[in-house]
Amino acid sequence: MAWWKVSSAGRDVNPDLASERQSPSFNVETLTNILDEGAEKTRIKRAVVSVIHKDPVFNREFLYFKTRSERHEGAVRNSLHLKRKMKEMGWDENGPELPYIYRALGGETGFYVHEVFIKTISALGTDEQISKWLPLASNYKIIGSYAQTELGHGTYLRGLETTATYDPGTQEFIMDTPQITATKWWPGNLGKTCTHSVVLAQLYSNGKKHGMHPFIVQVRSLKDHAPLPGISVGDIGPKMSFEHIDNGYLIMRNVRIPRENMLCRYSQVLPDGSYIKSGSDKINYFSMILVRVKMLRDEVLEALMKACTISVRYSAVRRQSELKPGGKESKILDYQTQQQKLLPLVATCYSIDFTSKYVAKFYNDVYDELRKGNFSSLPELHVLTAGIKAFATEICSNGVEVCRKACGGHGYSLYSGIPSLYTKVTASCTYEGENTVLHLQVARFLMKCFTGAQSGTPLPSSTAYLSSPPAGGCQAKTPADFLNPEVYLKVYEYRAYSLVTSAAKKMQNLMQSGSEQYLAWNGTAVELVKTSIAHSHLWTVKIFVSAVNSVSSDPEITAVLKRLCDLYALHGIFTSAGDFLQHGYLSGKQLDMATTAYLGLLAQLRKDAVLLVDAFDYTDEQLLSAIGTYDGNVYHNLLEWAQKNPENKKVNPIFENYLKPYIHGNPSKL
Amino acid sequence: MAWWKVSSAGRDVNPDLASERQSPSFNVETLTNILDEGAEKTRIKRAVVSVIHKDPVFNREFLYFKTRSERHEGAVRNSLHLKRKMKEMGWDENGPELPYIYRALGGETGFYVHEVFIKTISALGTDEQISKWLPLASNYKIIGSYAQTELGHGTYLRGLETTATYDPGTQEFIMDTPQITATKWWPGNLGKTCTHSVVLAQLYSNGKKHGMHPFIVQVRSLKDHAPLPGISVGDIGPKMSFEHIDNGYLIMRNVRIPRENMLCRYSQVLPDGSYIKSGSDKINYFSMILVRVKMLRDEVLEALMKACTISVRYSAVRRQSELKPGGKESKILDYQTQQQKLLPLVATCYSIDFTSKYVAKFYNDVYDELRKGNFSSLPELHVLTAGIKAFATEICSNGVEVCRKACGGHGYSLYSGIPSLYTKVTASCTYEGENTVLHLQVARFLMKCFTGAQSGTPLPSSTAYLSSPPAGGCQAKTPADFLNPEVYLKVYEYRAYSLVTSAAKKMQNLMQSGSEQYLAWNGTAVELVKTSIAHSHLWTVKIFVSAVNSVSSDPEITAVLKRLCDLYALHGIFTSAGDFLQHGYLSGKQLDMATTAYLGLLAQLRKDAVLLVDAFDYTDEQLLSAIGTYDGNVYHNLLEWAQKNPENKKVNPIFENYLKPYIHGNPSKL
Repeated sequence: MAWWKVSSAGRDVNPDLASERQSPSFNVETLTNILDEGAEKTRIKRAVVSVIHKDPVFNREFLYFKTRSERHEGAVRNSLHLKRKMKEMGWDENGPELPYIYRALGGETGFYVHEVFIKTISALGTDEQISKWLPLASNYKIIGSYAQTELGHGTYLRGLETTATYDPGTQEFIMDTPQITATKWWPGNLGKTCTHSVVLAQLYSNGKKHGMHPFIVQVRSLKDHAPLPGISVGDIGPKMSFEHIDNGYLIMRNVRIPRENMLCRYSQVLPDGSYIKSGSDKINYFSMILVRVKMLRDEVLEALMKACTISVRYSAVRRQSELKPGGKESKILDYQTQQQKLLPLVATCYSIDFTSKYVAKFYNDVYDELRKGNFSSLPELHVLTAGIKAFATEICSNGVEVCRKACGGHGYSLYSGIPSLYTKVTASCTYEGENTVLHLQVARFLMKCFTGAQSGTPLPSSTAYLSSPPAGGCQAKTPADFLNPEVYLKVYEYRAYSLVTSAAKKMQNLMQSGSEQYLAWNGTAVELVKTSIAHSHLWTVKIFVSAVNSVSSDPEITAVLKRLCDLYALHGIFTSAGDFLQHGYLSGKQLDMATTAYLGLLAQLRKDAVLLVDAFDYTDEQLLSAIGTYDGNVYHNLLEWAQKNPENKKVNPIFENYLKPYIHGNPSKL
Repeated sequence: MAWWKVSSAGRDVNPDLASERQSPSFNVETLTNILDEGAEKTRIKRAVVSVIHKDPVFNREFLYFKTRSERHEGAVRNSLHLKRKMKEMGWDENGPELPYIYRALGGETGFYVHEVFIKTISALGTDEQISKWLPLASNYKIIGSYAQTELGHGTYLRGLETTATYDPGTQEFIMDTPQITATKWWPGNLGKTCTHSVVLAQLYSNGKKHGMHPFIVQVRSLKDHAPLPGISVGDIGPKMSFEHIDNGYLIMRNVRIPRENMLCRYSQVLPDGSYIKSGSDKINYFSMILVRVKMLRDEVLEALMKACTISVRYSAVRRQSELKPGGKESKILDYQTQQQKLLPLVATCYSIDFTSKYVAKFYNDVYDELRKGNFSSLPELHVLTAGIKAFATEICSNGVEVCRKACGGHGYSLYSGIPSLYTKVTASCTYEGENTVLHLQVARFLMKCFTGAQSGTPLPSSTAYLSSPPAGGCQAKTPADFLNPEVYLKVYEYRAYSLVTSAAKKMQNLMQSGSEQYLAWNGTAVELVKTSIAHSHLWTVKIFVSAVNSVSSDPEITAVLKRLCDLYALHGIFTSAGDFLQHGYLSGKQLDMATTAYLGLLAQLRKDAVLLVDAFDYTDEQLLSAIGTYDGNVYHNLLEWAQKNPENKKVNPIFENYLKPYIHGNPSKL
């Protein structure tokens, strides 16, 4: 067949990619099993992925050509079909298949916030409320949303303005949006789908304000989906990504709901309007932390792993310029500058993978303690998850964009698969807690620990370095010394210690010169953010080092993980060198040594690069990338996808409507 | 009227924004005139902008709701309408209005590459060719494209594979795409619009290869726009942005074109197939440099200026959390962390503005010299434009994204206007020379200068610091010393000097230990890129310092520009501290002082922030941002735009097609 009639049938693996897999220095499957936490999970994952891919309803082939409406419709269809599919396959809501199902669908499902609606009622409703609402929601007799954020209020929940005023005369709450800034804004499923919503509102009863509480409000008719009286509801419009989600707005003008619609497991309003607290809702705060724990792996790391897979494979296929004058054009992966862009990000994937597992385990441990009534580790859990969330979303989002740019022009085409990863993952920097706000919360904890250390209070293990920092300067004398985790762990500890110390001192100085505490805090905020980054960064290095020593007894696997860990640590030193040099723990000469060690690792890991991303074990259907397929037939895919583009098959109105009058000499007809 | 029926008619300026403008420390109009290079130009600009905004054909109101096809159609319509408009207004192709026209249209025009087609023929065609093709193209009797990049080949032009083989028997060239990687890919106007294209191809004649040459190839019928025999042509599909451009692909299978279709001002093929060079085409290389010079202001800086305007105004309106416990929620611009995100970017706008003017002037000077036959400054011009292009596109793209994230959730909505700025400007990092490739070209020049300095060869003024680096360490003793340009210019010079020196030494060492030169180069590439960044960064600081001293005699203007220049310089030291500390020119304590000076400037410039972006003088129509309008009615705009969304007026198929069967109890009907 002529080469320009491209087809994916019966293709060989591109020799440039095949050669990368010829003599692996470790067993790729073993590494995949480690990432999956066991061969059995790898098996389940692949079975799930295969079932999803084979189902034509879930086909994502034309995703990049679809409009927002088509994407939203497709996501709703997927969700409804998935329910049937799960029943058919015997997959359980709590079964081991669940995370793989959503990953296989590429997040293209429509009822995520409906699930939040269900979980909120389960967590905050009484047994009676649960038994009333859950069967309705679970069977899609009603579709729910969760309306918290307002036009003028995001991360700072206390600022929310929507009101729920109790009327003892009718035993109803009057739900109201008092002014424009109180308009509910952003909730998913609100724009075009839901019939009901949990609405967070300031409760007023008998003239007293009782703070934020959750209420179930019906917003659309079950008969014809029209907004109910007093309700204005609609879609908030196009976003950078999330085309498949109908984020919406909601205005309520004195909408009355029955008293029973306040979710009252932890507090209730009696018929006469008296307000009763009935227990702590700390467990609810816990569920917010769980969202941060889960998003780490399922959304944030997922995006970077896919972007690395695509860009590393492409870099082993793409050839450009001659490294050796007069030689063949070289694979771009052979350029040190390309290795410097991509290999540290591959290492970052492994780092964040181990970190996300550590955080999940820590979460479970604290949860177990909590159920026994022990709340002592809660602050540490909050700090760990807040700091890692902010740290990981930032490096993963930026990393995806580095991968995209590293693919040059083709990275700019949606067909590369990377633009849509970026436009989606970057949202994680602002949702579930804006990153700067989270970093400052971590910093507050670090300042407290520092003050504690000064007065001899024992510190939690995560900040023990504040009371016993590494002393005497870095001992490294050669580049090879920097491949010793004990050496670089101390370097990272000293960096965090010195940043915390100098921020604390600066605050003290400001206050001693008469600044009020809040002004001193704000005048140190830029440096405080740096303490949180340094602390969280240190944690990721610690967790990686410990994982290298524990996840495998296979010496080849351990060796390659060790190299990745070293690369991750030294890359951090190379790119944030100022922090490490400023307080003299590391000298300029030692930084040179660390750089030499770092660049040496790039060259070493170059040969494992493709295998290290193969181990992430994504199917071509999951990657949805013309330039990142397993077989590396980059150019065939690009041409084939372009030829499939429905735009190229439609009648083109440009000629008839615009050009013809000019070309045929009658432009005055226009 | 009820508040939820929002309208923009007769609104007051939001008091939170009005208060920012109450007691300016400088005259905003004067600063606008400086940016425009004279009050007369400001006048012309505003007149042009007003004419464009008033014309309903150019209305961009519903841009964020449009599909790719609608965007492309709109851009073609705009271009054709613009031609008539310019005639009507008496605006000339070379008149002072031109840059403002395109800026007012927000780049939403369709014939950019058609213009490149025209310019290429003018530059590389003979007088005969020009008089044949130009009238056709200028009157849209034919529509042109410019096809250079191929599927497998981008920045490295020598790698292009398309062939043009001369057949003396018929006096024709046979144009051919020999294999898939040679498919022309990316040219604008090729996908759905053009009838002809300049095609770059390897010329073969009488069995000899003569390198890349330009040929005019007709690709579509003038009668019905169908591809001509042997031609496959189409749109390459969706990209991250540039929805309005039909980037296309082109495959030619032995397509014959007449000998006269080779553009032969500088080389030609005679009827018998003999090949003749007739002059140097250096002047053509010059036009590539011109593209880089122009894109700096019109595309790259434009995006950052708009993003800064939007995010700074929004930050003066948005309130979140209490700075002072128990106080009112604070403007987010009052948080040091927000100032640290935005104010250095405002300063960067001013820096890149002055830099782009400097580069344009340097270009014109060298061009004048060139016409006198003096080519000596060409390498320096190349290095300056390549380095500044790579440096500025990177910081401006990243800066736009920082602005977007600094607007929190609303920055993620297309209505903020920033997402579309980012997805467009980020392309500039890879087009017109991939940034890493450009940096390495600059580094090659720096290495040559360094070697020259070692042997006493006089250096061009831009690299004079390599032969006489600042000596004796930084003399600053207080934070205030860092507000002295002489102090920080030396710090920047030393940084560039030390990075160049250590990269050169490393290369020498590698070669002395037996590495071949190309391997030593690749083994130093990461550090070489840093030399180019440091060199270009130094240049932007130098140019800014010189502008502060020359652009105005108004002391208030000079004072605010001086603060911006200091901020720009100290921000660079703060964020790339490692480079400045590593070789000991700056001590850790001095870095502390520089940081103190830097944070102090943030607080000082806070009060001028809104005025400094007002001075960029963008209309609301140009910004196309709900959160960045001059009147600061952020929340009204967001709600109004959401209510205007055509999606909210259409019948929603979700209920009828998907939900109703569940809600009404008959899901089996699905």
